[in-house]
Formats: sequence, structure tokens, C-alpha cells
Amino acid sequence: MSDAVSPLAVPFPPLPAIAGVTPRVARAGYKDWGRCDLTYVELAEGTVVAGVFTRNVCCSSEVELGRQNVAQGQARALVVNAGNSNAFTGYRGREAVEAIMAQVSAHLACPAEQVFVSSTGVIGVPLPKDKARAGIEAALLAEPCNWEDAAQTIGTTDTFAKGATATAMVGGVKVTLSAIIKGSGMIAPDMATMLGYIFTDAAVDPAILQQCLSQANLRTFSCITVDSDTSTSDTVLAFATGKAGNPVLASFDSAGADAFAAALEQVCRELAHLVVKDGEGAQKFIAVSVTGAVSDESARKVGLAIANSPLVKTAIAGEDANWGRVVMAVGKAGEPADRDRLSIGFGGTWAAREGQPLADYDEAPVAAHLRGREISIEVDLGLGEGRATVWTCDLTHGYISINADYRS
Amino acid sequence: MSDAVSPLAVPFPPLPAIAGVTPRVARAGYKDWGRCDLTYVELAEGTVVAGVFTRNVCCSSEVELGRQNVAQGQARALVVNAGNSNAFTGYRGREAVEAIMAQVSAHLACPAEQVFVSSTGVIGVPLPKDKARAGIEAALLAEPCNWEDAAQTIGTTDTFAKGATATAMVGGVKVTLSAIIKGSGMIAPDMATMLGYIFTDAAVDPAILQQCLSQANLRTFSCITVDSDTSTSDTVLAFATGKAGNPVLASFDSAGADAFAAALEQVCRELAHLVVKDGEGAQKFIAVSVTGAVSDESARKVGLAIANSPLVKTAIAGEDANWGRVVMAVGKAGEPADRDRLSIGFGGTWAAREGQPLADYDEAPVAAHLRGREISIEVDLGLGEGRATVWTCDLTHGYISINADYRS
Repeated sequence: MSDAVSPLAVPFPPLPAIAGVTPRVARAGYKDWGRCDLTYVELAEGTVVAGVFTRNVCCSSEVELGRQNVAQGQARALVVNAGNSNAFTGYRGREAVEAIMAQVSAHLACPAEQVFVSSTGVIGVPLPKDKARAGIEAALLAEPCNWEDAAQTIGTTDTFAKGATATAMVGGVKVTLSAIIKGSGMIAPDMATMLGYIFTDAAVDPAILQQCLSQANLRTFSCITVDSDTSTSDTVLAFATGKAGNPVLASFDSAGADAFAAALEQVCRELAHLVVKDGEGAQKFIAVSVTGAVSDESARKVGLAIANSPLVKTAIAGEDANWGRVVMAVGKAGEPADRDRLSIGFGGTWAAREGQPLADYDEAPVAAHLRGREISIEVDLGLGEGRATVWTCDLTHGYISINADYRS
Repeated sequence: MSDAVSPLAVPFPPLPAIAGVTPRVARAGYKDWGRCDLTYVELAEGTVVAGVFTRNVCCSSEVELGRQNVAQGQARALVVNAGNSNAFTGYRGREAVEAIMAQVSAHLACPAEQVFVSSTGVIGVPLPKDKARAGIEAALLAEPCNWEDAAQTIGTTDTFAKGATATAMVGGVKVTLSAIIKGSGMIAPDMATMLGYIFTDAAVDPAILQQCLSQANLRTFSCITVDSDTSTSDTVLAFATGKAGNPVLASFDSAGADAFAAALEQVCRELAHLVVKDGEGAQKFIAVSVTGAVSDESARKVGLAIANSPLVKTAIAGEDANWGRVVMAVGKAGEPADRDRLSIGFGGTWAAREGQPLADYDEAPVAAHLRGREISIEVDLGLGEGRATVWTCDLTHGYISINADYRS
């Protein structure tokens, strides 16, 4: 964890324990730092898993193996290494992941593909196998820890620990979700990495869990951006132990399926927002709401074009209601838009409607809104029913300092 | 022109006059500034024109009309307004452009569609018709000016005047190209705008001129980026008066067609580089060379993903040979790439080959290279024969200061 905490930081919430889930942390010493850096989570027999992974084609071995192994749907353990991302390390990096999977599967007497591994930190250096082995041995002997310890241990350049929780009634039974995430602080020479883990005691078919996670991902993690750059290691995994004793969610027609999906999406949204709130140099949290697009996906792309625009993000940093830059970003998104139907507002006040600045535009409420920490930008394309909200942070001197002023 | 000149500035070169081209400047007073802000270039009868325009769908009326009128291939005048972009101003903005076209075409007794207009500056405010009219009247009475005056007058937030020239032998006759450009400095609440004008005395069929310009554009203006944002007004026009007396270039089989195309591309490349060298906050000029892609277009897209990555650009600002960030940018480009075939170098020294850091990587020459003003990044994808070079600048505190510290 870094010293300077983000001004957008949120206190770590009380996160319930999840039956069948036992987190432990240990010190593998991947870096020369006085903190735990290996997280080991043991999962009860019968736990099912779903996952979403980075689309970066230069992904790490952890992502390759995770994407492959999530397909079989069962999980017994999660290992997260902090301080070394093991990315771009060729066959030696892959061997290090396979060694961890072999060690843990031998301990649990389970197939290796039920052991999921993530790594985050410096790239280009193969994860040291001896440190990983000793770290896991230490974790197996450690007392179980609480969620905040686990959230802190998976962190690298994060400035605060991040967690979220939700419950849902499934067939008359309360199921609970507890989740932690790290990201997206980056520090040279490392890359941004978002690693998120959701644990629930719900009984759910792995295919349904995967569908719920994929859908939630589209509206949450796929709708955030800090700087348009995409880590080679981004991973979100959901684990369901089934210990709540609810009737198994075997289809979307099952009682409580909607409630479970909504709870999962809520947790994903909270986690996604926390990542943005720890964006490098972030001083303001920005929600970009796009309506009137030809489709939801088109709205999402327009929203991301706005949220990734350095000119929009610096304008918000400067508390400047620069709707012209929003117009520019809409126009370059590559999606259907009509300059003369476009309306743009800030904090609920329209600045321009149907392609022209409002004659009676009242800048006072907009200026007051922009001085706050939570900013909203509203864009109505005036074409259809498609809508989406994406989230980002402003682009500040802090971002440059973190990413440029460092020398390797 | 701004006070603080870019450290990458290039002195304005000696630019030959072009027979049949008469530039003049005047003070329209679009802003409250003590400088000329209207450029009027009269073109001899028989001048042909070609153009390339922004792909931003929220483009200005100038761009809409220019794109439409360039199709008829003839031009008699160019008017460039600085200080007001006339973008996002609805029908009133369009009326202002049409008024300028009518005024000039009446003066020259030519069709209105042979008058080309560009505007750059503040958005959302219709170009004041009275100021434009008086400015053009003043320009018509003014003495002809030199290219440097014209280059300065089309500029807005540019920190230095930009020009380029070349010659070619066409059928035993020397033809000359002189060209000026402005961009891409931006100033809140304005947007980046790149406006470039190439004048030649060559005799060339308008369709051939358009093909030459479109091809050159693909390898020059379409290969530069400052911050990934796309102006609503970007325009490059080429005018050919035919006064050199060369045999008309009527096809690519004509004698000298290749030489003319090469000269045009050279001028476009020089202009494009000058725009990058005046990028906001730029301290370093970066050339990204991509080889081994599946196609030239794929190589260009990979190059732009690298050149647009805030993490890569801040690493160069920090003089950090952060090849991992280049890997990340390659992977997110959405183009074919294989992590384990990828090689990355800086200034001609490989840092990573075939997916792994070089064991004997010598960082000293790379560190020395990165301390310079002109940086090269080499990426070999190891897949095919496609190649491209794109150019950008680093991302510095200066960019944030220019774009965020300003308050409207």
C-alpha cells in the first residue's frame, strides 16, 4: 500500500465470512518489503468457479491457464502473488505457475486445474519458484485472516484496501457475497492490473455463475477506465461454495436467480467504482451517462470515448464545463451520432441542446457541481433508446508524476 | 502564437513563392488580440484542388462544405479564420461560411464552391459575419505576404510557424511545392485543430492529385497523434496551379508522377512531424516503428496503440525504457500479435526479443538515447511483412497544465 491515500478512498466495509472459504496470507518476499504478499484462499469441496479475463493478447500465463481451467467449473484454491506479475516471462513464467498449481493440488488432493493463480507487479521477471513454494508453505500453516488483510495483501500500488458485499434471497434462503479487488494504481515499471475475487455461499450451477458474471462484467468492469490502457493480467473470478443450502440455481428460471444476478452485479459495480476511485492521481470520480444511442453497446462505446479522452479528463481536473471537448469525443467514437441532435450536460444541467449552446445556459450550478468530488456528464445522442453509464477519473498532474517522474 | 516556444521547434524554412498563388493576411479581430487572424490566398484560374478531412462525425460546416466542394476539383481561393472554429454552431455557423464563399466568389467572379474556408479557435460561437466580411475586404486590399506571415496567421496556440517545401522533376520540368500547417496545440475551451495547405505550380489532374494526397495522408497525417483526440475541423488541402508548365500529370503512368507523389509525401511528412513537435507539453519527439505485422494497416494500428498509450508516453517523458508498457499497448491494439514472438527496442538496441527480456541487455546506450530529444521505439511482431512508422510526443506535466489548469 502506498503512503498517500486517494482523496476518493472509501473505508473498508464490514465483510461477512463466507462458509466454505478460508483466506490466509503469508510473506513470500517477492519484493524487499515488510508486508505479506501471498494470499491463499482455500475453498470447500464442491465450489464452482466462473471468470472473466483481460482481452490483451499479450496476457500472462496466469491468465492463459485461468481462462483454460475455468471452463471445467470447479475450484479448490486461489493463490494471489503481489510484487511480481510474471508477465512476459516465457516458458519459465509458465513453469512457475504450474509449480504453484502442483504444490497446492498435492496438498488438497485435487486436480491441478482446480487451483487458480494470479500475479501482479513487476513484469519481465519470472516469478521465483522457491519464494512461491516457501510462501505457500507458510500460508498453509498460518491462521485464517480477515477480508481486509486479504484485500491489503493482493494490493500493490493501491492506496486503500477495497471490498464489497451484498446478499440475496434465493428460494427462501439468504445467500451472501463478499468480494475484494486490487487496482488500478500503476507504478513504473509495472502495469495496471485489476484483480477481483468474489466469494459466495450460494449454490449455483457453474454455467449460470459464468453467465451472471459475464453479464455483470459488461455493465461494470467493462464500463470503467482510468487511462485507456489494458493490463496483461486483468482477472475477475467468482467462487460459489454452495454452503448456504439454497436450492441450486440451475437456470435463470430458478427462484431467486434474478436476485442473485442483481446482487452479483451490485458487488461488481461497487468493486469497479473502487478501482476508479484509486486511479492514479484521481481527484474526481466521473460518471458519464449516455442516452439516445442506437444501442446499449453503442452507448457504452461513446461513453468510453468520452471517458478516455485526455482533453475531457483534463477539463474535469480543471473544473471546466468544456462541452466542446465532449462533442469532439462523441464524434471520434466511431458510433452513429448527429452533431445537430446532440445534447450535453453536467450534473443535471444542460449546457448544449440539439447541437448548439443553450442561450439561457446557467453556468453557476454547473460550476458548483464541478467543484465537487463526484462529477456526472450527461450525453443524449437523440437517436434511439440505447443507454449506458461508464466511470472514470480525472487526469491530473498526479498521474504524470506517478508514471513519468519515476526512473527505473 | 504562444510565448513559450516548444523545445522541439524548427526554424521556418525558406519557402519559395508558387506561381499562381498569392497569399495575403488581414486583421478580422475574431479575438481581442493584436495580430492578423484572417488569411486569404488567391489562386490562378485553372487551379485544381484535393483534400482530406477529419473523420470526426461532429465536424464543422467548413469541413462539410469543403468535403463536398473538393469533389468538383477546382479552386480559386482559400480563406482561413483563426480565433473562432465556428464548430457546433448549427445553421448560423453554416450561414457564416456561405457568406464568406459568396463574398469571395463575387469578387473573383467564380462559382462559390471554388472558395474553400477553414476556421480554428473557440467552439460554440458562430463566426461573426460582419468581422469576416470586413476582414476579407481588408485582405483584398492588402499587399501580398510571405509564407511565414501566412503560417503565423493561420496559427492559434501554435508556439512556432510551420512550413515545408520540396521539388520534383516532372517531364523535364521542375515543379515546386510550398506548404504551411497549424496544430496541434490546443487551448481550453478550444479543440485541437490541424489545418494544412500545400501549394504547387505543378500541372496535375485533380483525380491524380487527390490520389497522391490520400496516399500520402495514410502514411503521414494518419500516422501522427498527440493525445488520441480528434478535432472536428482537421483539414489538409492541396492546390495545384499548373503554372510550372510541365506536361499534365494525368495518370500514374505519366513521366514524373512517382517523383511528384514522393515530393508531396515528403512535404506531408515534414508538416506532420512539425505538428507533433508542437504538441502540447512535448519535450520529446517519438517515432514508433512497427515491423513484422500481418499487414501495413495492422502495423499502423499497433503503432498508434503504442503512440496513444498514456503509460508509454509518460514512460518516455520519464526517460524510462519501459518495454513492458509497450508490450501492454501491443496487446490491447486488437491486432494479431503473439507475446512469444514480440521484440522491443529503443534507439536501435533490443530490450526484449521473442517474448523475453534479453539476458545480456545493455541498458547504457538505451538510457543515453532516452535522454535525447528524438526517441525511437522499435517493435517487431515477428508475424509477417507489414510495417509502419507513427509519430507522437511524450505526455508531460506541460500537457496537464495547458489543458487542466485553465479555467473557462
